[in-house]
Amino acid sequence: GGPGSGPGPARHTVAVLGSGDFSKCLTARLLRCGFRVVVGSRQPKMAAHAFPHVVDVTHHEDAVGKAHIVFLAIRREHYSFLWDLKHLLEGKILVDVSNNRRVNQYPESNAEYLASLLPDSFVVKGFNVISAWALQQSCPKDASTQVLICSDSLEARQQIMELARQLNFHPVDLGPLSSSRDIENRPIQLFPGWKGPVLAAVALSIFFFAYSFVRDIIHPYVKFKQSDFYKIPMELVNRTLPTVAITLLALVYLAGQLAAAHQLYYGTKYRHFPHWLEGWLQSRKQLGLLSFFLAAVHVLYSLCLPLRRSERYLLLNTAYQQVHANVENAWNEEEVWRVEMYVSFGIMSLGLLSLLAITSIPSIHHTLNWREFSFIQSTLGYIALLIATLHGLLFGWKRAFEEEAYRFYLPPSFVVALALPPSLTYIEMCVVFILHPNQTVFP
Amino acid sequence: GGPGSGPGPARHTVAVLGSGDFSKCLTARLLRCGFRVVVGSRQPKMAAHAFPHVVDVTHHEDAVGKAHIVFLAIRREHYSFLWDLKHLLEGKILVDVSNNRRVNQYPESNAEYLASLLPDSFVVKGFNVISAWALQQSCPKDASTQVLICSDSLEARQQIMELARQLNFHPVDLGPLSSSRDIENRPIQLFPGWKGPVLAAVALSIFFFAYSFVRDIIHPYVKFKQSDFYKIPMELVNRTLPTVAITLLALVYLAGQLAAAHQLYYGTKYRHFPHWLEGWLQSRKQLGLLSFFLAAVHVLYSLCLPLRRSERYLLLNTAYQQVHANVENAWNEEEVWRVEMYVSFGIMSLGLLSLLAITSIPSIHHTLNWREFSFIQSTLGYIALLIATLHGLLFGWKRAFEEEAYRFYLPPSFVVALALPPSLTYIEMCVVFILHPNQTVFP
Amino acid sequence: GGPGSGPGPARHTVAVLGSGDFSKCLTARLLRCGFRVVVGSRQPKMAAHAFPHVVDVTHHEDAVGKAHIVFLAIRREHYSFLWDLKHLLEGKILVDVSNNRRVNQYPESNAEYLASLLPDSFVVKGFNVISAWALQQSCPKDASTQVLICSDSLEARQQIMELARQLNFHPVDLGPLSSSRDIENRPIQLFPGWKGPVLAAVALSIFFFAYSFVRDIIHPYVKFKQSDFYKIPMELVNRTLPTVAITLLALVYLAGQLAAAHQLYYGTKYRHFPHWLEGWLQSRKQLGLLSFFLAAVHVLYSLCLPLRRSERYLLLNTAYQQVHANVENAWNEEEVWRVEMYVSFGIMSLGLLSLLAITSIPSIHHTLNWREFSFIQSTLGYIALLIATLHGLLFGWKRAFEEEAYRFYLPPSFVVALALPPSLTYIEMCVVFILHPNQTVFP
Repeated sequence: GGPGSGPGPARHTVAVLGSGDFSKCLTARLLRCGFRVVVGSRQPKMAAHAFPHVVDVTHHEDAVGKAHIVFLAIRREHYSFLWDLKHLLEGKILVDVSNNRRVNQYPESNAEYLASLLPDSFVVKGFNVISAWALQQSCPKDASTQVLICSDSLEARQQIMELARQLNFHPVDLGPLSSSRDIENRPIQLFPGWKGPVLAAVALSIFFFAYSFVRDIIHPYVKFKQSDFYKIPMELVNRTLPTVAITLLALVYLAGQLAAAHQLYYGTKYRHFPHWLEGWLQSRKQLGLLSFFLAAVHVLYSLCLPLRRSERYLLLNTAYQQVHANVENAWNEEEVWRVEMYVSFGIMSLGLLSLLAITSIPSIHHTLNWREFSFIQSTLGYIALLIATLHGLLFGWKRAFEEEAYRFYLPPSFVVALALPPSLTYIEMCVVFILHPNQTVFP
Repeated sequence: GGPGSGPGPARHTVAVLGSGDFSKCLTARLLRCGFRVVVGSRQPKMAAHAFPHVVDVTHHEDAVGKAHIVFLAIRREHYSFLWDLKHLLEGKILVDVSNNRRVNQYPESNAEYLASLLPDSFVVKGFNVISAWALQQSCPKDASTQVLICSDSLEARQQIMELARQLNFHPVDLGPLSSSRDIENRPIQLFPGWKGPVLAAVALSIFFFAYSFVRDIIHPYVKFKQSDFYKIPMELVNRTLPTVAITLLALVYLAGQLAAAHQLYYGTKYRHFPHWLEGWLQSRKQLGLLSFFLAAVHVLYSLCLPLRRSERYLLLNTAYQQVHANVENAWNEEEVWRVEMYVSFGIMSLGLLSLLAITSIPSIHHTLNWREFSFIQSTLGYIALLIATLHGLLFGWKRAFEEEAYRFYLPPSFVVALALPPSLTYIEMCVVFILHPNQTVFP
Repeated sequence: GGPGSGPGPARHTVAVLGSGDFSKCLTARLLRCGFRVVVGSRQPKMAAHAFPHVVDVTHHEDAVGKAHIVFLAIRREHYSFLWDLKHLLEGKILVDVSNNRRVNQYPESNAEYLASLLPDSFVVKGFNVISAWALQQSCPKDASTQVLICSDSLEARQQIMELARQLNFHPVDLGPLSSSRDIENRPIQLFPGWKGPVLAAVALSIFFFAYSFVRDIIHPYVKFKQSDFYKIPMELVNRTLPTVAITLLALVYLAGQLAAAHQLYYGTKYRHFPHWLEGWLQSRKQLGLLSFFLAAVHVLYSLCLPLRRSERYLLLNTAYQQVHANVENAWNEEEVWRVEMYVSFGIMSLGLLSLLAITSIPSIHHTLNWREFSFIQSTLGYIALLIATLHGLLFGWKRAFEEEAYRFYLPPSFVVALALPPSLTYIEMCVVFILHPNQTVFP
């Protein structure tokens, strides 16, 4: 052959049933990578206009007869008509690329339904995670190009994985067809791993906000007719954020401590954790990132405090009073040290947490080995929690022991925040350490 | 064979013409991955010193005769001498790895020029995006290892892609040789996608800076002989940054709304957008990231305001005046609420924009499915724009309606910033929504 | 065969010696990807319970006889018993997956020791960088899946690389078995590239902290009995951070300038740099990131300054004094301009450094070509250093020339910080530029 046609034979023929968007983009990709394509359509004459001239657009029966690999780019509702092609599809590889609209829309996955309809064909699930848009991209720089594939037939799976590679995608083998439900849910899920952690953060935020509202707004209003409602948008939010952040951070390490205690109690590494603990352990990354995000927003709110008019007016009024009271020096050494210390600890804690967040970026995570990742996420994480606890204790200082700090008998919110998950974590840690000093305390 | 030579045969022989840096590094890589290499040089005896002993360094004619795949590690200016080797190169695969100095330096790409010189060889463009440095790396942890490949010969392309894989690179098939111009431009382009957005940001910055300069510096100087030039480095810059940031953010979503309106007007999804809109749509990511960057710098400037001496002197002078005027309480409830609210909205807006920026990091983007990415970039992005608009409106408060705010008849800059792209975006959104309520408003 | 068994034959049989954790996870992965597995154990009856039923768990001799590829999932201490299986292992591929506890624990790598024990087998090192946890993951979304492989036998290496691909990993060819020491050290190293830069940062921090402590705390205490110890947690730390940050940033570019000078002096690009310079050049990324981190923490400390009680008390006292001295206007135009300018330059410098840091994220780095990366890291980096120097000079202003700034004859720390690496870098740059104006100044 001449140079135009290449020194070797072209790749084999692939059939695509259906003539919609996905079919068009898949056909274009197959052509570009050197395959011959035959498209099956109910109205081949009309559909032919939408495809390049080199594509053979014909009836379904005809298309199926011309290829060993058949892509089904049709909706699940139309699978029933494949029944008529049953004998033609026998022994062929059918690739189910369909997506649903909702998670778990049908009792069984589309691919399993197809396999039950056509038991003598080799059904492979795949390519549904690739959008029509990604199929059109020649260079997969910006697009996720993992193609998840499963099939009960090992040989069919391997053939479709090789095909995916030839189309410039990265195939990932997810085993038997029972994985197809998972594969079909993938592109339509909305942050499945974040549901629990976000709910926890929202619930904690509502609780701590309401708590501070009662203590800091309602109490002075009821007791002294003092209207501090202007504190709602910033001061109250900024009191809620750090309490939620430290609680979430403690929950990250409490899960690890509970797991360690569970293993020590049952004396084995191989016993499964209870379901709730397993879910909690798998949410640690999300809990940690939420904690960092809230801590960063807390810092932003704190830094904005001096920009406020209220701060300015209060300062001017204090200056006025100081002049009128003729106090030359307002210095209070204890207050100075308290604030210098708790601000320092806050900065250190955020600095450490930012290292944890940065190493959670997948491409940075991948450059670390297990020991390095564990050093950052576990050792530095515990230190960050400890420093954040000190930040909270120094912020509160002696107020936990002063009667006037207990408004409506409610202790200050920093006491509530520090009293629960963080102290639980430290207690667990001590217990695990005392019982088994050789065991690592940073699981 | 013994263990040293391996249980099977070695890989085949590859020829490399040229003996420069790239040739040396390519040869080293080929050897390490088990290929035999023959190097063609005009002065083989001199060149031989620069290569390992196992490499056969010989004359061009000789080298070409010994291999089926020939790498051309020579400059385009020397391609003409290949004419003499025309008969030897017939039917062989020639890999053009050349780079130019400037974008579109020649009327035709180097690879197409080579193909026109040697019509009976199979020319493949590739490996030019790999630096000599990357060739030397054994482990591609830190180096981009995509190799873009194109050729009119499908078989030649596939052979070179397989070779790239054997050399531990990720080949990407860009189709026919007409892509070679694009491939040759890749390594010498300087942020091609950023040119338009950066120019827009610079133009907007100059406009808004000059506008504020006239209103806030020139006006008080001309009218009241008041010298406020100290405001230039920080206050004026900090007035420019948020106006440019919100305009750029609105431009991101205005493009989407115009595209939706275009589709609704022409009643089809498949009609191409006009050229200017297509370019605009493809710049949205860059516009959004610039907007976030400017917003973040704006926050940094705002937070630095209380650090300034000018702020300190003005506050001390105000305290002096308050004492002398004997005003015990300077509190202004309306001002307090205005500032607390607009600072809050500013923080929220930046928090949301930071989520958009984080999910633009490629390795995080890849962990999201289409629905999740669209939720963050579209839904959260619109909310961020809305909150940023509220931030601007609360900052301005009643000043848009006060006569003294119109200096030289110019309205305050926040009015100009909010009056154009953001309000246009909201109007477009309403129009699209009213005409087609079922259509998604977040394209 | 029916659809269940697939249209083609299953993959071949692989032997795994050992029945620990790694063996179990590897076996599971091999099974899922269609291999038959035979496990060799010293107590096959007991071990069989831990494996799925389809796995053939038998004696070592028996297992080795049934496969061509044998994974050794046993510790180095037990390699000696393989001597008894020497004749059975002849001509077979042995994959050494072992890890050590410490870097360079033994004089020779485990794989080389194995090869010396069994010279007639083909030893391949690999899979040790994969954790048992990563083997269990079906979808390698979040796990590093590079498998580093080396072997003296090219054919064995290629077979194991192909096997790694079939197990959904990305094999990386590191050449002959002498690389095995490096491969074995990989998973147990703790940030090897960060040791030098972190030590440099710690040493510089201690020096500059002690220097400021003597000048700013001890000196006023000794001379005027003034107790400024409250400045230690924040002001002193915040004086140390920027000096260390600018020194580290200058070290990044000083290395490049020294390398350029070295090349110009020896007149060649190909002469190797001395060992210390080579190490310094390879630490530039880490030095730059540390510099950015310290600069960011410095900004955070600076922004927190107005939150302190000490700041508040000093301001109130100043207001009191201003009222009593009856100074209506405290304005000092020079001080105002100095602070507005140095704060501006500080923000600009951090903005530029943040671009350098962002483009160091691997997945963003990969989207840039060499020219773009060099523009950001070199051109923008030099500009950032220049602006940071101006920031320091404006901060210091005339104090370098005032006698009272020299406490205990020590100049202010900004003089020390700017006098050494930054000025050296600029001097080097001028020398290189004057001698060879055509040479690029940004290597």
